[in-house]
Amino acid sequence: INAQVVEEARQRQLQLTKPAGSLGRLEEIALQLAGITGQVKPPRLQKAVVVMAADHGVTAEGVSAYPAEVTPQMVLNFLAGGAAINALSKQAQAEVVVVDIGVASELSDQRLISRKIRWGTANMARGAAMTHEEALQAIAVGYEIVTRLAESGTNVVATGEMGIGNTTAASALTAALLGRDVAEVTGRGTGINDQQLAQKIRIIEQALATNQPDRSDPLDVLAKVGGLEIAGLVGVILGAAERKMAVVIDGFISGAAALVAVTYCPTSRDYLFAGHISVERGHRLIVEALALEPLLDLHLRLGEGTGAVLAFHLLDAALATHNGMSTFGEAGVSEKEG
Amino acid sequence: INAQVVEEARQRQLQLTKPAGSLGRLEEIALQLAGITGQVKPPRLQKAVVVMAADHGVTAEGVSAYPAEVTPQMVLNFLAGGAAINALSKQAQAEVVVVDIGVASELSDQRLISRKIRWGTANMARGAAMTHEEALQAIAVGYEIVTRLAESGTNVVATGEMGIGNTTAASALTAALLGRDVAEVTGRGTGINDQQLAQKIRIIEQALATNQPDRSDPLDVLAKVGGLEIAGLVGVILGAAERKMAVVIDGFISGAAALVAVTYCPTSRDYLFAGHISVERGHRLIVEALALEPLLDLHLRLGEGTGAVLAFHLLDAALATHNGMSTFGEAGVSEKEG
Repeated sequence: INAQVVEEARQRQLQLTKPAGSLGRLEEIALQLAGITGQVKPPRLQKAVVVMAADHGVTAEGVSAYPAEVTPQMVLNFLAGGAAINALSKQAQAEVVVVDIGVASELSDQRLISRKIRWGTANMARGAAMTHEEALQAIAVGYEIVTRLAESGTNVVATGEMGIGNTTAASALTAALLGRDVAEVTGRGTGINDQQLAQKIRIIEQALATNQPDRSDPLDVLAKVGGLEIAGLVGVILGAAERKMAVVIDGFISGAAALVAVTYCPTSRDYLFAGHISVERGHRLIVEALALEPLLDLHLRLGEGTGAVLAFHLLDAALATHNGMSTFGEAGVSEKEG
Repeated sequence: INAQVVEEARQRQLQLTKPAGSLGRLEEIALQLAGITGQVKPPRLQKAVVVMAADHGVTAEGVSAYPAEVTPQMVLNFLAGGAAINALSKQAQAEVVVVDIGVASELSDQRLISRKIRWGTANMARGAAMTHEEALQAIAVGYEIVTRLAESGTNVVATGEMGIGNTTAASALTAALLGRDVAEVTGRGTGINDQQLAQKIRIIEQALATNQPDRSDPLDVLAKVGGLEIAGLVGVILGAAERKMAVVIDGFISGAAALVAVTYCPTSRDYLFAGHISVERGHRLIVEALALEPLLDLHLRLGEGTGAVLAFHLLDAALATHNGMSTFGEAGVSEKEG
């Protein structure tokens, strides 16, 4: 990102009619957006959320509170406008882009972007979730989607997902990439009980033991214990950074995608905002590893991109103040004494 | 607030297409708004921020980083639309109501609500900041303003203020009402250095020693070591609760007003949302005492109502999801297993 522009934006902040630093994180957001866009007064945000949907073979092991059929049902709900991500995106004036990147059933709808790589991943407790080739294809889908969005004027993108079983994949990825114990990074997802949580941890441990993912090779980890929607979001993040677009990361699943993306390409981190901190325990370890400071803490654990889209408001607010406030000179206000 | 309606709203939340509780604090906000408005699906929010401006005689003691002339200058900036509160209110579609309740200079502008009780408070380090009568008049102004807003359809109000020296008054109020040491509740306000902070603490201790406010009598504390804008906001809060309007509290100054209001009338607390947690250390003690959980933590320390107006977005988001999402039945989505 453009350090010279960040410095000029910092100088502008010092001239606005408020005590220096008093807008806290809104000031930091404005500076980061200046650096990303290369403009001291960044342009108005044109927003989209990319919701990648896919299924997970590991659900056969009883790791989720919901049946796998909920994945396609929720995709139809997204298309019909009835889900939380729809309500929040409407409020945020953000476009909702729904992608079938690996749902395990036939879905056909004009409003759906159909890029099914395969009908759900294989059961990672018994072998690799997908091949390296399939993971790369899914990353390419993310690239393609974000490139198309950039070409139609979108300059900030939120990452969203839907996939029954995907906190299991995110936990496995996080354990492998951060070298943590499975129990440290595994939570209750959509709401499993103690016994189900113990089973989930056991299955993830089995998946890691069976697949032996190579921590130094993020593609290997992603293919063996990841998910198609997670791989798609890796592509969204890498593609957005390449196009100099800001990316707002949602919760744990999106965070796992960000972890893979930044491991690949460390400079992509500068384009990221952590929309919120999720209730899922592994998410905190991810944002710490990425040195991101989440913008919201609302005890969310829904996914879909909801926490990221909620945080769009703070990016808008940062620009509303940064671009819209008067300077001390313009307003005839006295500056600090001494 | 209406417990029956809260329960019906809770039942509605359980039917929406998401795991129960997965929208975290957005769900709590929706239930509180249902209870306040008495409607299971609360109506769209019509928002305003009341910015009360006044001066403080205690600035003669060198407690602030800015000269007192900044109070009227910033009032003019509010009226001209150049301040942070203007930029954020425009974004939030909130009306900005600016009230001169005690600025120590002549201000005349059609857009300003002129209700000057006196030309700033007296220097509380040497005697009472104002009389009980003046404090009551200021409370009545707040009542009047919020009543007028309610009559024109406003159903949620944010508290804002401007007054060089007012963190000194808020610290004195907080120390007196919570029975805390002055050093525990006193921060750097708009940005004073270590030496100035020591002076500020010494002056507040002197003010409390000189005035001996009666902790069991909030009016006595408010009059002796408070401020006119703080008293005005007490009236806004009490009036809003009486009219069954939601109130979003900003930072430390507004928090001190909330502390006085809830001490007077404990049920007014149920109408409050804490918009954010301020950098000012006394603010944390206030929200703890009021058992409020701040919605945002953005390291703000500006006042004006900025943190409260930023939080309007989360109230809107809570209603967007609560009122706008489909139920499991409507969307044909399977519910949790077992």
